[in-house]
Amino acid sequence: MPSASTTTSGITAPRGFRAAGVAAGIKATNGLDVALIVSEPPAQAAAVFTTNLAVAAPVVVSKEHLARSGGTTRAIVVNSGCANACTGEEGLQVARDMAAETARLVGCPVEQVLVASTGVIGVALPIDKIRGGLALAMQALGADQGSAAARAIMTTDPFPKEASTVVTIGGTTAAIGGMAKGSGMIEPMMATMLGFVTTDASVPAPLLARALRAAVDDTFNAITVDGECSTNDCVFLLANGASGAVVDEATYPEFLAALTDVCRELSLGIVRGGEGATKLVTVNVTGAATAADARRAAKAIANSPLVKTAIHGGDPNWGRLIAVAGRAGVAFDLAQAAVTIGSIVLFKDGRPYDDAAPRAADYLKGTDLVVGVDLGAGSASSTVWTCDLSAEYVRINADYRT
Amino acid sequence: MPSASTTTSGITAPRGFRAAGVAAGIKATNGLDVALIVSEPPAQAAAVFTTNLAVAAPVVVSKEHLARSGGTTRAIVVNSGCANACTGEEGLQVARDMAAETARLVGCPVEQVLVASTGVIGVALPIDKIRGGLALAMQALGADQGSAAARAIMTTDPFPKEASTVVTIGGTTAAIGGMAKGSGMIEPMMATMLGFVTTDASVPAPLLARALRAAVDDTFNAITVDGECSTNDCVFLLANGASGAVVDEATYPEFLAALTDVCRELSLGIVRGGEGATKLVTVNVTGAATAADARRAAKAIANSPLVKTAIHGGDPNWGRLIAVAGRAGVAFDLAQAAVTIGSIVLFKDGRPYDDAAPRAADYLKGTDLVVGVDLGAGSASSTVWTCDLSAEYVRINADYRT
Repeated sequence: MPSASTTTSGITAPRGFRAAGVAAGIKATNGLDVALIVSEPPAQAAAVFTTNLAVAAPVVVSKEHLARSGGTTRAIVVNSGCANACTGEEGLQVARDMAAETARLVGCPVEQVLVASTGVIGVALPIDKIRGGLALAMQALGADQGSAAARAIMTTDPFPKEASTVVTIGGTTAAIGGMAKGSGMIEPMMATMLGFVTTDASVPAPLLARALRAAVDDTFNAITVDGECSTNDCVFLLANGASGAVVDEATYPEFLAALTDVCRELSLGIVRGGEGATKLVTVNVTGAATAADARRAAKAIANSPLVKTAIHGGDPNWGRLIAVAGRAGVAFDLAQAAVTIGSIVLFKDGRPYDDAAPRAADYLKGTDLVVGVDLGAGSASSTVWTCDLSAEYVRINADYRT
Repeated sequence: MPSASTTTSGITAPRGFRAAGVAAGIKATNGLDVALIVSEPPAQAAAVFTTNLAVAAPVVVSKEHLARSGGTTRAIVVNSGCANACTGEEGLQVARDMAAETARLVGCPVEQVLVASTGVIGVALPIDKIRGGLALAMQALGADQGSAAARAIMTTDPFPKEASTVVTIGGTTAAIGGMAKGSGMIEPMMATMLGFVTTDASVPAPLLARALRAAVDDTFNAITVDGECSTNDCVFLLANGASGAVVDEATYPEFLAALTDVCRELSLGIVRGGEGATKLVTVNVTGAATAADARRAAKAIANSPLVKTAIHGGDPNWGRLIAVAGRAGVAFDLAQAAVTIGSIVLFKDGRPYDDAAPRAADYLKGTDLVVGVDLGAGSASSTVWTCDLSAEYVRINADYRT
């Protein structure tokens, strides 16, 4: 299992990675706002990006660079405080300049630099401040600076998200580390989930891409705070081989399991730090006809404002769970379905067990909760994580941004 | 345009309809909770029902009756305070008994009675109280009791929703009247939007069904409070021909326009009375490649908690509008898209017009608002109505129901 965060527990836990987090003056608060990750030797990269059509400039540039470099990557530069999204041609030029300056400082081709931004949409990103920040970051770069980088990618996340683990591959120990920032749009118009994962294992490009896709599908893609997909979402995975461990088809399962552990810890941190969140809720949908049905029903439940407010209020309102499943567009028969809160059955065989409601209400006083809907229509299942919906969420998002 | 609500402005505005609203003791508050609508002569009925798979017993029974009667309908009985949903075989029997008792009192075949319920899910509906209520309703039945019926179908809607209009068809004046209750789940576990529309025009069954489907699609199906589709949603339309006006293919457009007016007024009433709502928001999506794309993007924007909280706070946060459009799964190119708040352009030709933000913030202080996204991808458009998301919504829905 991933260890607790320490100064070397995040992206700099694997060998060959250095990082920095510095204040470049992009945030009005003068907090840390530029993060740099550099790998020596060059790493193989895999990435997954937002599917939002209103795609931000750094996403466009990172995709281009990965295509041109075949994935060979030396550095990632990230800023918080400005998403560089919906900024037109000028914004695209700023993202390119940000990569070019990083490449110049690190001493590598520009396509070996990836870029990411998070913050306000539709506001110009000042390239001069980025240049100043990069100069500082090059000086600060260190194998013990992962946590500074994790803080530099925060907007108003309540806490930094870091994770790391070790995995033995063919007798050689490799590390996997990661950092992430929240999807909760914690500051008005902040709209980004960013994840960065490093490993000192050597992983061929096709396996690396396959592993990231699989791990993300069960972790970052299985969480929701408010059902919003941002313009800037991305997860990068860099593998530099510095440990000497080599992942192949035979050792892929161990690598994937360890990678998934790291991604899950980062993902759950995002949900726990969701806007106004007071409870982490695991939504289990079982008995679905297909895996797609299971995920669809689980996502619908996890995004339902009525379910999320009921859980916030500690109301064992099982009718909302089954009503959401019913409108989710998945196949099932009400007479075969069941609803559980914790391990307490509240609806089964077509009839309510409402006398169990007080026990369920007691269970819901906790802060780490599990709710389940069994569709009774097959054997597929899906788990999605969400948080409750509080008045604080509204307060945060209704505040005028200026 | 529909007139303001008066004692004869709702479902009893058309000739030949009587109604009643009585207190049967189903609501703990002893408020009005049983409504009865009776048509003399028999009316032709059309109906649209919830698509939720967790369908409530009264919906099952009403569908059966419409199939057996070919639509010929004498009465509709409705109760509030209990949804009779997720109540198994017993609940189904209660819905049948409710129709049978109504048929006995009115003196018609049971299949000429339709039933509807709204209230708590998963709780048994007491048939004895329904029987008592029906006896009272038969005594109270009157051509001036439409407003009592409109109050009897409320759960904790902040106000009753009634509308009516007149339309001249082939030289003869006919009336259309209606009542509805809110979809806002205003009381915890209340989960129903119900609409009842009457007309004294004579409308052949196929035209009646076509008109209801068309009117509902642009009204009841174009509103959202919290994106939740309930187990009990239904809209009934009864045409009894008492005015002598006959709708045919030639006069169908006038009838549809008048019907749509009534349905729109009822629908907007539901949104204005949505849980915690302080603003009515008209979402216009234009320039879509297809009508389906336009509706999909408009619904996504109207259901976005980030858009709804921004509007609640008066924040001209146009980035959220375009970001939601971007994740809605519709075709468009960011460079061709535009965002307006009121008539103020905030994003166009791929770049922000953020200096207009203060004017937009001023506009958002109003309570009847229009926001627009032009996708620049075609000529299809869609309008959807929603309300803002307030902390009061959370408070209402987080309260434990006991």
